[in-house]
Formats: sequence, structure tokens, C-alpha cells
Amino acid sequence: MKQTKIPAVTINRLSFYARYLFLLNLKDVNVVSSTQLARACGVNSAQIRKDLAYFGQFGVRGIGYYVKDLLAELQRILGLNKKWRLGLVGVGNLGAALLRHTHIHHPGYTFVNAFDHDPKRIGVQVGNLIVDPVDEMEETVKTAGIQIGVIATRNKMAQQSVDRFIKGGVRGILSFATVQLQIPPDVHIEHVDFILKLDALCYRLTAN
Amino acid sequence: MKQTKIPAVTINRLSFYARYLFLLNLKDVNVVSSTQLARACGVNSAQIRKDLAYFGQFGVRGIGYYVKDLLAELQRILGLNKKWRLGLVGVGNLGAALLRHTHIHHPGYTFVNAFDHDPKRIGVQVGNLIVDPVDEMEETVKTAGIQIGVIATRNKMAQQSVDRFIKGGVRGILSFATVQLQIPPDVHIEHVDFILKLDALCYRLTAN
Repeated sequence: MKQTKIPAVTINRLSFYARYLFLLNLKDVNVVSSTQLARACGVNSAQIRKDLAYFGQFGVRGIGYYVKDLLAELQRILGLNKKWRLGLVGVGNLGAALLRHTHIHHPGYTFVNAFDHDPKRIGVQVGNLIVDPVDEMEETVKTAGIQIGVIATRNKMAQQSVDRFIKGGVRGILSFATVQLQIPPDVHIEHVDFILKLDALCYRLTAN
Repeated sequence: MKQTKIPAVTINRLSFYARYLFLLNLKDVNVVSSTQLARACGVNSAQIRKDLAYFGQFGVRGIGYYVKDLLAELQRILGLNKKWRLGLVGVGNLGAALLRHTHIHHPGYTFVNAFDHDPKRIGVQVGNLIVDPVDEMEETVKTAGIQIGVIATRNKMAQQSVDRFIKGGVRGILSFATVQLQIPPDVHIEHVDFILKLDALCYRLTAN
């Protein structure tokens, strides 16, 4: 089957399912009913079946889902059974908060390098990392085998940071900048834009 | 027309248009062609026309859009012509970064109170605010007239924080927590979930 046709919202829901199964597994729960899984993830059972049907047949009629098996399957589908090496550029308030973030839900994500252009920040320890200079980014990204680049710079520095990651071999970008960024077709980008979410809230509060 | 039927993605694009028009207006640009606006926002001209058509007729054939007029109209539609009073709960790394965030794109959003349950944080200045105790949240939220509540707590504290905001009269929640939250039907919620975005990137990098 062509996985590229699977909608982004489905992928997001698979993440939710995997999160909840991860928690159940921590508590040694063996089986979860589709109703319980659905309720915990804010969807209905039919939606879960539809989402999973892209990848095969998982539920057992009258039982539900085996927690460990479905979790392993979802982690494999999402690529969360691998280790991912992250680099971050822009160690301001937001960047530093991300580096110190300890709520990561599975051990697959690791920040291996952080970069900044400010001489006052270079060489300083933030979280577990010593901040590296952006001038050496391309080389460091290659050497460290960074796979995902996180953009936490000011908007005007965002594009050149993306370009440096890509020159270093990165094919996945997570951007906290609020500007459009140019990327080649073989690179994937996701935006985290909380001002956009605030604007949407204001619209809803105003329209009602 | 019923504004509630307008899709969330349209509202998000209106924010993008407003942002770009805001920048053009700062530079005293009077007119923007639909091609230029489209390119800057990563869409095509037909999409812009379609999005704006929900609210009326704005473009001028052969000219494009008057920057100041369309910006004012979009700000009115989105509710960005008003001042919005924000409260934040959870002054950890992320919460503190948000309070110190200076990249807000228009002067409409102001954090007026920050709350935490940790005695070591209460009374401490973060950004322009002195951190208040969560115990007094409901009262403070009412008194301060907070309209939007930002959840930057750990997951296990998120639901009670939401409940306190709502008891204080808040009808819009922006959550950085990665758990499902229960809200009454007259309250709006938006989630900022960067782990979900990372998961989606891993899926794309794995599937290709």
C-alpha cells in the first residue's frame, strides 16, 4: 500500500493512540477495549478502526487490542522504534526551554547539538549540551549524524538555519519560526506556531 | 452568513495573510498583488480569493489588494483589533520562555498574570510579571478579566488548571500539555503539541 497517501490527521491520531498505549503498557495493562482507547484519545471506535485499517488488521473481536502488540506496531509504523538525533539552532528562551524539556514521551528523541550565532551563548552549557557556533553547523550536523533540525531562532535567521541543516544532510525540519521557509521537495517540514493557535482562539471567541 | 462553518485551515490562512499585510503596512506599502500575497503565504491566488469570499469582496481587479484596508478587515474578522488578556499557569522552562517571548506580531496579546503551585516560584518575577499562587487563580482570573488561559504545566496538573481558568470565566484555552482535556461545549481549546509534530516528521522520514 502507498503510505504517502495517508492523511496527516491520521498520522497525528496514531501518535495519540501510541501515547495512550505507552502509558497503559507502563502500568502492565495487557488489553484495551476499542471504546476505552477511543475515549482516552477523544475519538470514536470507528475512527480508530479506520485509521488502523491503512496498515492492516489489529483488533480482536470481543476483546479489543493487545496493548504491547499494538504499541509495537504503531511505533514501527511511525518510526518511533528508532533513535532520532536532533539538532537545535537558536538558544534563546524558547530554544533553551526545549533543550531542558523533560516531558519527552519516549526515549527515541535526543538533542545531540545546539547552535547559536551569539558569542555570549557559544560554549555555554544548556541542558546537557554545550552550545556550538552556527558557523560550524554544516560540518557538525554531518559529523553528529543529525536527522532532524529544530529552528528556534528569530524569524530573520530561520531560513539560513534551515539551509545549513539541509547542507549538513538533514531531511526533517521542525520550525518554531512564524515565517514561510523554502525547502527542497525531498525535505519535510512541520511548523509549531502558537500565535496562529492564539489567533484561531480569538476568532472563535469573537465569532460566537 | 454563518461564520461557524468556516474551516479552521481557512482561519489559519487568514492569520498568515494578516501577518504579511502587517509587515507590508510597516513598510508603508499601499497595494499588494494577489500573486505576491499568495507567494509570500505559500498558497495560490485562487485560494486567497476563496478564503476571503467567506467574508465579502476585497480585491480590486487589475490592482490586487489595498494593504491597510485588507489588514484592518482581517484583524476585525479574526478579532485582532481588540486587546486580549492572557493568563499562564506553569512557570517552568516553557512557561517562562512564553512569558519572555518578544516575537508577538501584534500588540493585541498581553500576559497579565502567571500562576504556579511551587512555593519557590511564587512571588518571583518572570518577564514583566510576579508569579501568583494557583490557589488564588479563580479569584485572580476574574479580577484581572483574563480571557485566554495558557496551560504550560506538566500533564498531570493540566486538567485542574483548565478547570480553574474556566471557573474564573475564561472561554479560550491554549494548551501546551500533551493530554486530552475535558472542557464544556462553550469553551474553545487549541493544542500546541510539538512532540506530535516530531512524530509526524519521523513517520515521513521513515515512510519515504
